[in-house]
Amino acid sequence: MKFKQAIIVSIFLVIGQTCLAQNRISEDFKPSTLNQPGQEYPEVNSQGYARFKIKAPDADSVRVSLGLGGSGGTRLVKGADGFFTGTTEGPMDEGFHYYHLTIDGGVFNDPGALNFYGSTRWESGIEIPAHDQDFYALKDVPHGNVQQILFASKSTNTQRRAFVYTPPGYEKNKSKKYPVLYLQHGWGEDETAWSNQGHANLIMDNLIADGKTKPFIIVMTYGMTNELRWGHMKDFKIEPFQTVLVDELIPYVDTHFRTIADKDHRAMAGLSMGGMETHAITLNKPDVFSYYALLSGGIYTPEELKGKTKPKLIFISCGSRERPDGVKNAVTALKDAGYNAVSYVSENTAHEFLTWRRSLHELAPLLFRD
Amino acid sequence: MKFKQAIIVSIFLVIGQTCLAQNRISEDFKPSTLNQPGQEYPEVNSQGYARFKIKAPDADSVRVSLGLGGSGGTRLVKGADGFFTGTTEGPMDEGFHYYHLTIDGGVFNDPGALNFYGSTRWESGIEIPAHDQDFYALKDVPHGNVQQILFASKSTNTQRRAFVYTPPGYEKNKSKKYPVLYLQHGWGEDETAWSNQGHANLIMDNLIADGKTKPFIIVMTYGMTNELRWGHMKDFKIEPFQTVLVDELIPYVDTHFRTIADKDHRAMAGLSMGGMETHAITLNKPDVFSYYALLSGGIYTPEELKGKTKPKLIFISCGSRERPDGVKNAVTALKDAGYNAVSYVSENTAHEFLTWRRSLHELAPLLFRD
Repeated sequence: MKFKQAIIVSIFLVIGQTCLAQNRISEDFKPSTLNQPGQEYPEVNSQGYARFKIKAPDADSVRVSLGLGGSGGTRLVKGADGFFTGTTEGPMDEGFHYYHLTIDGGVFNDPGALNFYGSTRWESGIEIPAHDQDFYALKDVPHGNVQQILFASKSTNTQRRAFVYTPPGYEKNKSKKYPVLYLQHGWGEDETAWSNQGHANLIMDNLIADGKTKPFIIVMTYGMTNELRWGHMKDFKIEPFQTVLVDELIPYVDTHFRTIADKDHRAMAGLSMGGMETHAITLNKPDVFSYYALLSGGIYTPEELKGKTKPKLIFISCGSRERPDGVKNAVTALKDAGYNAVSYVSENTAHEFLTWRRSLHELAPLLFRD
Repeated sequence: MKFKQAIIVSIFLVIGQTCLAQNRISEDFKPSTLNQPGQEYPEVNSQGYARFKIKAPDADSVRVSLGLGGSGGTRLVKGADGFFTGTTEGPMDEGFHYYHLTIDGGVFNDPGALNFYGSTRWESGIEIPAHDQDFYALKDVPHGNVQQILFASKSTNTQRRAFVYTPPGYEKNKSKKYPVLYLQHGWGEDETAWSNQGHANLIMDNLIADGKTKPFIIVMTYGMTNELRWGHMKDFKIEPFQTVLVDELIPYVDTHFRTIADKDHRAMAGLSMGGMETHAITLNKPDVFSYYALLSGGIYTPEELKGKTKPKLIFISCGSRERPDGVKNAVTALKDAGYNAVSYVSENTAHEFLTWRRSLHELAPLLFRD
């Protein structure tokens, strides 16, 4: 009897502790690394909970769009000091998340956080520290530059903007020429996304410092995706952007930077809707790029590639919370058909930027190897 | 009698029309050029009035910080559709203005407008078209690049950011070396201000296209001014920033860009508190810079320059709504003492960015002439 009782008590103790552990929030909150200078909130803790604090003394309701899936976000509670506070009801996925506030029915940004262009507007951003965040950390290594260029576009009758990453050493080796990766953002984002949210430059700086990738140039421009309402991607016409990219931007980059200006030294990659653009343009213009990469942005099939010049590499990735089987199956089919195809699945991430930071980190070492 | 009546009637008509004219707001409102993509509001009209429209259906009060001097901003009025709308009670000064919303007692940005770093936070920005806006317009001329660089700073144990404008043709003429202007932002701003708010790159592109200035490099970094509360400028210690600028950034720029790395080809300028920094550093380090410029940022006196190497140029400017007499008198005193000094007063502007855009436009052609 005593033994049995002890077991039952132990079981209840274990269950009780587990429940407690699940509900216990570590009070080791620190400001998110993406806060505006000097701002304490939003905070994140070591478990991935996010905590918000918003001053709005005369408001009735403040809600944060960020929260567990299906929870509709986090409702903040007003204190006597006029601040609304609240914590997500569970830990968030590691990495970068967009969010906004709804204050008395209107949509605004969190004055504590930096803004990032997504959903066709500048949104608040928060960073849940990832266990592998070291690969995109700002370290004391030689840094490449991110250059804003403005190029004339006849087809759109505008002066358009792009950002160009030049690797460390680019200024010194005045005779060296470099291959180029054209890297596209997703729907609702723009040419700032891969540097601001994606840390593409830091990922490259760190890979190059470790000798893990050849140095190359990255070009990021606006994919003209935002004119489309969300959910109407099939209505998107690729031609206007294809003309800007292939007939205007690539020639500009090839005349203004020290590029190896041929197909064998040119790659195209894109995330989400930028993957759809990459898919369409690489198939429409098989003589322009040799390396194709889709990050949470669809797949290639052997059928659609048939009869065209073989790319040197097809890279397809997504987060484990997306459709990893679709990615893996597509790559198996491509390999079976004789293509050099690689799949990558980012563990415990969804359709968000940590998936794409990791994907770039996996992709870069595979580019321009011969 | 008839004649007298006619005169009286005419007088009243004239008075009446004048009053009407003063109160009549032209309904030619257009979206501000600094709106987020696709956003209609805020709007500005040809007279310089600004109109706002904010969705906040359950809010009690929405106020805009922008308004005529002393008016405390513009109070918006709630409509049946849940939108708060309102127009400034008079025309605003031409040029760029920071602003924010106060919603039920909390401070937020206008979701329609782009954000600009000022007052130690990212604020909403609006542009009242200036009659001379052509000099900083984005035109179909050859464009220079604005490069983000990251440099190691031992004195602060950080990797620090700066932006470097390289003029059109910089990539092509691989043997040509360029002089450098170090250009500082004001209190509460950072290294993004001179490109985003100031359009320094477009001002230079246009001047160079017109043959009005020698091409030179501009370097913009964070002046470490924001740690100080507003109104406590006298407590500011220049040494930490001076070390970063003179001992760390200048050597980095001189080794990573094609500069003419001597005093005769180096200028320093700053706006507002950046002018105070320029004043202090040029006097502390008279062997580093040859051209000094203070934009709404104090003056030099012959006494403090006495015994030091003579600068090639001292440029002092401000807006006509600041203290133009102080600027003019200071320059007269400098000239009398044998210095090459130039004053510039921006008409009908205050302590705001149109003053500084115009000042840079006046300053650039005077730099590096021999």
